Amino acid sequence: MSHGLPLDLDLDRLRRCGFPEVVFGAGKTVEEVLAAAQRLHAEHGRVLVTRAAPEALQALSAALPAGRAFPRSGCFSSGAPEPDCGPVGVVSAGTSDEPVAEECAVTLQARGVRVLRFSDCGVAGLHRLLRHLDELRTCQALVVVAGMDGALPSVVTGLVDLPVIGCPTSVGYGVASGGRAALGTMLASCAPGLTVVNVDNGFGAGYAAATIARRSR
Amino acid sequence: MSHGLPLDLDLDRLRRCGFPEVVFGAGKTVEEVLAAAQRLHAEHGRVLVTRAAPEALQALSAALPAGRAFPRSGCFSSGAPEPDCGPVGVVSAGTSDEPVAEECAVTLQARGVRVLRFSDCGVAGLHRLLRHLDELRTCQALVVVAGMDGALPSVVTGLVDLPVIGCPTSVGYGVASGGRAALGTMLASCAPGLTVVNVDNGFGAGYAAATIARRSR
Amino acid sequence: MSHGLPLDLDLDRLRRCGFPEVVFGAGKTVEEVLAAAQRLHAEHGRVLVTRAAPEALQALSAALPAGRAFPRSGCFSSGAPEPDCGPVGVVSAGTSDEPVAEECAVTLQARGVRVLRFSDCGVAGLHRLLRHLDELRTCQALVVVAGMDGALPSVVTGLVDLPVIGCPTSVGYGVASGGRAALGTMLASCAPGLTVVNVDNGFGAGYAAATIARRSR
Amino acid sequence: MSHGLPLDLDLDRLRRCGFPEVVFGAGKTVEEVLAAAQRLHAEHGRVLVTRAAPEALQALSAALPAGRAFPRSGCFSSGAPEPDCGPVGVVSAGTSDEPVAEECAVTLQARGVRVLRFSDCGVAGLHRLLRHLDELRTCQALVVVAGMDGALPSVVTGLVDLPVIGCPTSVGYGVASGGRAALGTMLASCAPGLTVVNVDNGFGAGYAAATIARRSR
Amino acid sequence: MSHGLPLDLDLDRLRRCGFPEVVFGAGKTVEEVLAAAQRLHAEHGRVLVTRAAPEALQALSAALPAGRAFPRSGCFSSGAPEPDCGPVGVVSAGTSDEPVAEECAVTLQARGVRVLRFSDCGVAGLHRLLRHLDELRTCQALVVVAGMDGALPSVVTGLVDLPVIGCPTSVGYGVASGGRAALGTMLASCAPGLTVVNVDNGFGAGYAAATIARRSR
Amino acid sequence: MSHGLPLDLDLDRLRRCGFPEVVFGAGKTVEEVLAAAQRLHAEHGRVLVTRAAPEALQALSAALPAGRAFPRSGCFSSGAPEPDCGPVGVVSAGTSDEPVAEECAVTLQARGVRVLRFSDCGVAGLHRLLRHLDELRTCQALVVVAGMDGALPSVVTGLVDLPVIGCPTSVGYGVASGGRAALGTMLASCAPGLTVVNVDNGFGAGYAAATIARRSR
Amino acid sequence: MSHGLPLDLDLDRLRRCGFPEVVFGAGKTVEEVLAAAQRLHAEHGRVLVTRAAPEALQALSAALPAGRAFPRSGCFSSGAPEPDCGPVGVVSAGTSDEPVAEECAVTLQARGVRVLRFSDCGVAGLHRLLRHLDELRTCQALVVVAGMDGALPSVVTGLVDLPVIGCPTSVGYGVASGGRAALGTMLASCAPGLTVVNVDNGFGAGYAAATIARRSR
Amino acid sequence: MSHGLPLDLDLDRLRRCGFPEVVFGAGKTVEEVLAAAQRLHAEHGRVLVTRAAPEALQALSAALPAGRAFPRSGCFSSGAPEPDCGPVGVVSAGTSDEPVAEECAVTLQARGVRVLRFSDCGVAGLHRLLRHLDELRTCQALVVVAGMDGALPSVVTGLVDLPVIGCPTSVGYGVASGGRAALGTMLASCAPGLTVVNVDNGFGAGYAAATIARRSR
Repeated sequence: MSHGLPLDLDLDRLRRCGFPEVVFGAGKTVEEVLAAAQRLHAEHGRVLVTRAAPEALQALSAALPAGRAFPRSGCFSSGAPEPDCGPVGVVSAGTSDEPVAEECAVTLQARGVRVLRFSDCGVAGLHRLLRHLDELRTCQALVVVAGMDGALPSVVTGLVDLPVIGCPTSVGYGVASGGRAALGTMLASCAPGLTVVNVDNGFGAGYAAATIARRSR
Repeated sequence: MSHGLPLDLDLDRLRRCGFPEVVFGAGKTVEEVLAAAQRLHAEHGRVLVTRAAPEALQALSAALPAGRAFPRSGCFSSGAPEPDCGPVGVVSAGTSDEPVAEECAVTLQARGVRVLRFSDCGVAGLHRLLRHLDELRTCQALVVVAGMDGALPSVVTGLVDLPVIGCPTSVGYGVASGGRAALGTMLASCAPGLTVVNVDNGFGAGYAAATIARRSR
Repeated sequence: MSHGLPLDLDLDRLRRCGFPEVVFGAGKTVEEVLAAAQRLHAEHGRVLVTRAAPEALQALSAALPAGRAFPRSGCFSSGAPEPDCGPVGVVSAGTSDEPVAEECAVTLQARGVRVLRFSDCGVAGLHRLLRHLDELRTCQALVVVAGMDGALPSVVTGLVDLPVIGCPTSVGYGVASGGRAALGTMLASCAPGLTVVNVDNGFGAGYAAATIARRSR
Repeated sequence: MSHGLPLDLDLDRLRRCGFPEVVFGAGKTVEEVLAAAQRLHAEHGRVLVTRAAPEALQALSAALPAGRAFPRSGCFSSGAPEPDCGPVGVVSAGTSDEPVAEECAVTLQARGVRVLRFSDCGVAGLHRLLRHLDELRTCQALVVVAGMDGALPSVVTGLVDLPVIGCPTSVGYGVASGGRAALGTMLASCAPGLTVVNVDNGFGAGYAAATIARRSR
Repeated sequence: MSHGLPLDLDLDRLRRCGFPEVVFGAGKTVEEVLAAAQRLHAEHGRVLVTRAAPEALQALSAALPAGRAFPRSGCFSSGAPEPDCGPVGVVSAGTSDEPVAEECAVTLQARGVRVLRFSDCGVAGLHRLLRHLDELRTCQALVVVAGMDGALPSVVTGLVDLPVIGCPTSVGYGVASGGRAALGTMLASCAPGLTVVNVDNGFGAGYAAATIARRSR
Repeated sequence: MSHGLPLDLDLDRLRRCGFPEVVFGAGKTVEEVLAAAQRLHAEHGRVLVTRAAPEALQALSAALPAGRAFPRSGCFSSGAPEPDCGPVGVVSAGTSDEPVAEECAVTLQARGVRVLRFSDCGVAGLHRLLRHLDELRTCQALVVVAGMDGALPSVVTGLVDLPVIGCPTSVGYGVASGGRAALGTMLASCAPGLTVVNVDNGFGAGYAAATIARRSR
Repeated sequence: MSHGLPLDLDLDRLRRCGFPEVVFGAGKTVEEVLAAAQRLHAEHGRVLVTRAAPEALQALSAALPAGRAFPRSGCFSSGAPEPDCGPVGVVSAGTSDEPVAEECAVTLQARGVRVLRFSDCGVAGLHRLLRHLDELRTCQALVVVAGMDGALPSVVTGLVDLPVIGCPTSVGYGVASGGRAALGTMLASCAPGLTVVNVDNGFGAGYAAATIARRSR
Repeated sequence: MSHGLPLDLDLDRLRRCGFPEVVFGAGKTVEEVLAAAQRLHAEHGRVLVTRAAPEALQALSAALPAGRAFPRSGCFSSGAPEPDCGPVGVVSAGTSDEPVAEECAVTLQARGVRVLRFSDCGVAGLHRLLRHLDELRTCQALVVVAGMDGALPSVVTGLVDLPVIGCPTSVGYGVASGGRAALGTMLASCAPGLTVVNVDNGFGAGYAAATIARRSR
């Protein structure tokens, strides 16, 4: 390989300074997840693992006893800093959406953001959502997690003047299967200002909300 | 053709007694629409034409001066009876959904059902919908017409204990184009009891709501 | 949370008065299903569970011995009232559609509606359907359950002057897999007055038909 | 090009002996259509043109005055032989399906097959179809043309013991647009023995039915 | 149920006289399959079962020892008559398409049609197909079974002057998964006269080819 | 309508305080657009119109001479405040993406946000993007507009530690037509923190970025 | 903008040395196309314009009289070098595929590659393709252009030991509309070594084939 | 079968001379894979097996001890020649794409092509890709393997003047599931000269790249 030093030095300028201490656990063996997590933890003093299998969570808990496993979402987090910004609200529609909401909340906390959780706020029971209106409006940003019809983010965005990120989930059957209906309605929303992430991408929604919250201090 | 009378007589038993005096105008020439409408009007004393082109509406108004044309939706109705049941509420989200909502309302009236219209009730401005809550609850059934995100029927169904029919419209662009997003979210709705018709099918939604209302007397 | 009493009181007005005693069992543990069912049963004296796993049905039968489990559809119902309205007809095309038809019938019964079942009425054997024509016409509403080609609801709707709800099922392979073909043909039906629910949503179809039947008394 | 005579001679064995005298007019200029039609007519004494624009039909009628133009379907046929086999029944659901049905019938006649037409037989009015049952059963094969819900071929196939070819049309809107719903339900049909062609492919359906009828003599 | 005798009598006229002795085994228990097969066998002296699980095949072989099980395709056939018409050619592209081709061949034989099998004829090795050209042309009809690219039926139809039925299979991955690519190319074929059945529907293709062959005697 | 004052008062609490002075011009007549714009301008001293036809832009310029029309995107803006926050970068891939990028920039400016434009930065010419790296990193947030392959937002997000909103455009043909490919790749992006809006929704992307920027002061 | 010289210099290393003298004419005004073409021609002594409207072709011919316009495909090429490599074969299935094939051939010639054209080689008439077999095998690479069923590239790839690029076209209706069926079957091809470009992308196919041919010298 | 010798002889001319010693292991039993591999190895002295199950790999290793199994991709190769051309670069985005990249590399080596591997080059960390720029430019051709957003091939193609083949993988969830997003963006790429294979088709990509490389000597 013949290219010289000058380009190498410049390439470092292309590195993004942010939060690289994440291991995406899906499709990796327990050993691979563990090795990657230990290496990142050694380098940075913190690590976030997402989509880890139960055995990987066990291995992580044994190897990094100061960390915490979140079995519902398959997350493991160690070295999360004290929250110094936020809060960001994580609103979810139904109990089946909880794993994705948890992945989102854990990601926010791993980036030092305080989180408020609002669960079971589906639009079929509007009074449950409206009860939280004042508190929702105190947040720096909101992530709204919903499967099935995915109508919740449109309703929430119409009620607040905040950055709102819609996160569809794969919960549902028939036309909703795989999150298609929820994704579609969120992207098509009439409520201006809503942005969207991929189905089940609680990590991405939390990461983006954290980036917003960190700059809102 | 050799089959005898007995079958012919029985076949009449397969006829549906309902409301056959409808002409679907799309894809027909002005002459064809006019001829069909005049024949039905002569037989039944009433006729409903949907999806007629402007020239067809003009020809119908000239030929059947007691009737009324609805240019926004391309409908023409003559001989509609005095309403003797209802009301059915027709709720719509945005101004672009009005043509479909009008087709629905004209169909209901053609079948003798009283109609209440609730316009501009999109979920991004929830207060506009909730203002009508008491009146919505007085209806025998509701048709909720919405394009774009199509979230309105889910919200409305969660607020009333009535038969609700969701009618998606083709209003929208990107993932919403052709009514796909709206149709998906309505079918996937978490609000129990919502049923759905094809995109832009204001006639079908109105016909079904009229069948319900007529039996609710 | 700082908002005052007046809003709280008004929020109760947003509650829908209907039939909230339902547990959607899919994706919940046996313990979660059982706890939810027992809580609702204690509050309301009745409960309907849908899409429960076999172990959940066993646990429910043990805990609520007055109730009845329906293993084919994964339903459990306790405290269903004596039927005081109806009947609603539940028509199904093939034997593989029976679980969805059963979920629909159980839901209707849980809401106090009398049910008539018409099985094995697929359009490929039209004489089997037509044999029931008179009885079908005595119903307050019909739910027509069909997978594969999903043609049955169009045919039935053309024969009666009743509210008809089409319920596609995920039975089928190739272009029919997941219920796509059946859903499409039902939404596109030329028979006016047919409305549709999501694939496999026997609960939703039954709930909507019950709402119609209850108002038809 | 170096390959010798022997291969050339064998290649002639790959030619299909059938009915090559067809010009597909779509996307061709009037001149191109005319030239191709005249060349085939000169060679074979007959020609069939499909999907020709009105100007092309005019030019064809002027150049080949013994032929006949079918403006509804854009067909032109000259030199069609006296029918010596059949009949094949062409059944259509609604008036908007007529152009495709006409293309099918003209194709059959161009191949010397006698045609019986059964129009306006949509499943929403079953008595209209059943009235023709005896006559349908006298045919050698049936082509059933339907748009919108496309349910007609399933019903017809269940009533006869004949080769039935379903031809979906692009008539319809919403989920039916472009013929998607009709195509899906035909392919998914529970009625054994139904085969299907592409949307609007009246020519292909007629060609296949003619191949069957010619061998049924 | 109040309708009188005359209709009942006429309904028998709606029965299709054909080949009703078939059990579709998918989604049925071993007991259900066995009971249905035994009942049909007792009534008609023959039965065809498709898509049966291995245990069902075992039970059928034990109960109807004169029959034959076809494990690759999950078929069981008993009482098939001596072939008195045909032959019909069943052409398949690759070894993974064999189960569908076998289901097709067994169906043809169950209806008394002689079958010729042409395997491993994928278009990527054209010489293997062309070697059989003369024999293909002796058939009354052809069924061409292909997954992946599904190009074979277009090529075959261009070489013969026979009824050809394309049967796509779900063999393939990526864009081919579930048979989508194969189905699309077959429906879109430029070779006139090709008709198509649903993905993996070897039974339907064989049934249709048998109907053609039986009338070609 | 019978509900009393207390609810009405509370409903005002559901209004979102934000930026309601927008007219979506698509599907409205010139008169409707003009009337809505004049009303909003009279109430709020400012108005933004999007997706207006050329004639509507002319009428708006005549009626509100202090405003400015943007013909490429069909926008009209009057009363936009001096920018007091930002900047937000609007990055676009190709010249065909300019109308959407302009709609986005005009929206940002209408909400008082300073805008930096980076055009012609498609990934096929990476050096053009990297040239702007330092300047991109000075922004409060980025909107990245791209059609065809839509790969640009993934690349940009990997280079900065900022909120990035991807806006796919409908530019493209084949698999890219309607923006499908671009939308898919943006939602699937491996670069954490990217959120997405509907195809061609420059207004929504700009609105969301403005909400972020306004809170970043 | 503060970044210093060293990065700028390195960025030049990211430029691709290839063939940048191309103007994509779609969606550009005549003036824009002309200006871009003249600028590139002045800089490089050659230019290729694709997808230009007829008026743009006229303007280009007037401004660059040494160039040549190709109206069927909307191409304009000036300064194409004498061919010094190749040949590359451009095989097309039907006459409607000619515009895409022409765009491909013009692109190849603009890059100095000799082109052999093989037209009207659809798989429904295999003898027409096989007649050219020897000549096809003399090429350095092949581009195979086909719409409708798109089966041709699979067949061709099975006959040669060359790089083959499949280029689907949007020719077709029903399931073939927009080139979907053709694209699917090409990607799913069983013939190893076939690669594919976007629908109608004659330029891309030609560009890639030229890159291969230039390295084959 | 009556056709004579001359055709048979000519058919041999249709054989493609290339690399037929490949067994596609998916959907075959261990015995079938082993038998096919042994037969090819005996005939040609080499064999490549792809998509073999672990047990098949074991059996192959036992039967052909000179060969090598690649468990990650399910490949087995025996008798691969010493590389005499290349190199071809195989670039992959993430660790989950490794199995497909390995299948590609093994295929190249089996055809005698030298391979350079570039792993972990996803566009979210551009500096990792650019570090390899000089080496990438020394290759005869590149295969770029990427799942999720699939943006890598567009970026790479913009940096080199080489034949580049994009190979999407099925890695991903939501809109990326099954490789849909990656496939779409690659086909839609703005970077001229990129061609694409089916999702996960590392064999096809490697085969095509080998054909190019073999002719580049």
